[in-house]
Amino acid sequence: MSTLLSQQKISKKLTQFFIDHLPITQFMGLDVESYDGDTLILTAPLDPNINDKQTAFGGSLYNSAVMACWGMIYLKTQEKNIACNQVVTEGNIKYIAPVDGRIRAICHAPSEEELISFFDHFERKGKARINLEAAIYNDDCLKGIDPEAKLAVKFEGQYAILKN
Amino acid sequence: MSTLLSQQKISKKLTQFFIDHLPITQFMGLDVESYDGDTLILTAPLDPNINDKQTAFGGSLYNSAVMACWGMIYLKTQEKNIACNQVVTEGNIKYIAPVDGRIRAICHAPSEEELISFFDHFERKGKARINLEAAIYNDDCLKGIDPEAKLAVKFEGQYAILKN
Repeated sequence: MSTLLSQQKISKKLTQFFIDHLPITQFMGLDVESYDGDTLILTAPLDPNINDKQTAFGGSLYNSAVMACWGMIYLKTQEKNIACNQVVTEGNIKYIAPVDGRIRAICHAPSEEELISFFDHFERKGKARINLEAAIYNDDCLKGIDPEAKLAVKFEGQYAILKN
Repeated sequence: MSTLLSQQKISKKLTQFFIDHLPITQFMGLDVESYDGDTLILTAPLDPNINDKQTAFGGSLYNSAVMACWGMIYLKTQEKNIACNQVVTEGNIKYIAPVDGRIRAICHAPSEEELISFFDHFERKGKARINLEAAIYNDDCLKGIDPEAKLAVKFEGQYAILKN
């Protein structure tokens, strides 16, 4: 099986996790748009996540961003066959511009060195923490993942994994 | 009409705002538990907001806290008959302990001096910003609003009001 196929198979586990364990993600329509081993994109339609200004509700933007980073850690632990309990411990979000279309929350994987250090700490201590960032861009500006697209939301989260 | 009755009437506007404009709050079951002019409590049942650990999902906790502070500003502008557009510009949340029952997000009003300064700036400049805090306590520990109850979530948000 190619790496990409393997990543697609693994990313389906995240979709299944949402279905099995997080009912609010099903109301939001939150799902995996793509995962290539480095970049995870979660997406949700505007309608269930709308606010009084006909743009995306700040809480839904937070949920999308917090789960993009959470999902990245989940997929990395799945790739390494690490069984653990995983929680978010802190979230910081800045709303820079409104999102008036489909929500797309993008998280890039930590570097290989960071991941090795993170999992090594987990093996030795039974727990480990890591910081991750996510960004949301206006859908209208976003063609694929254009680095010039207008940043709408900047998110930083701290996550912990713990031995079950 | 007594002040308390008036506050109850005003707090119904927040419930109606949720119904009219924020579909995700209806899925969450988020509603006003009480408002006395100083303290606003938003509440939501655990079931629609549950996660894989059978505790409240971090995103639902954020949504409850961000809307408790947003709701406080909304009710204060309603009390003063100020028509404005109101947005959250930043949110910072710390998850300290899991919430294993009903979510209750508590926001205290800014001081009278802070509110006067906030609304005065709005009148002069057409926009103003204010910081607010919310807390969520474990339902099991919470008898009324017990200051000794165990803090589960600490939230700080920045909000802006803008002339329509």
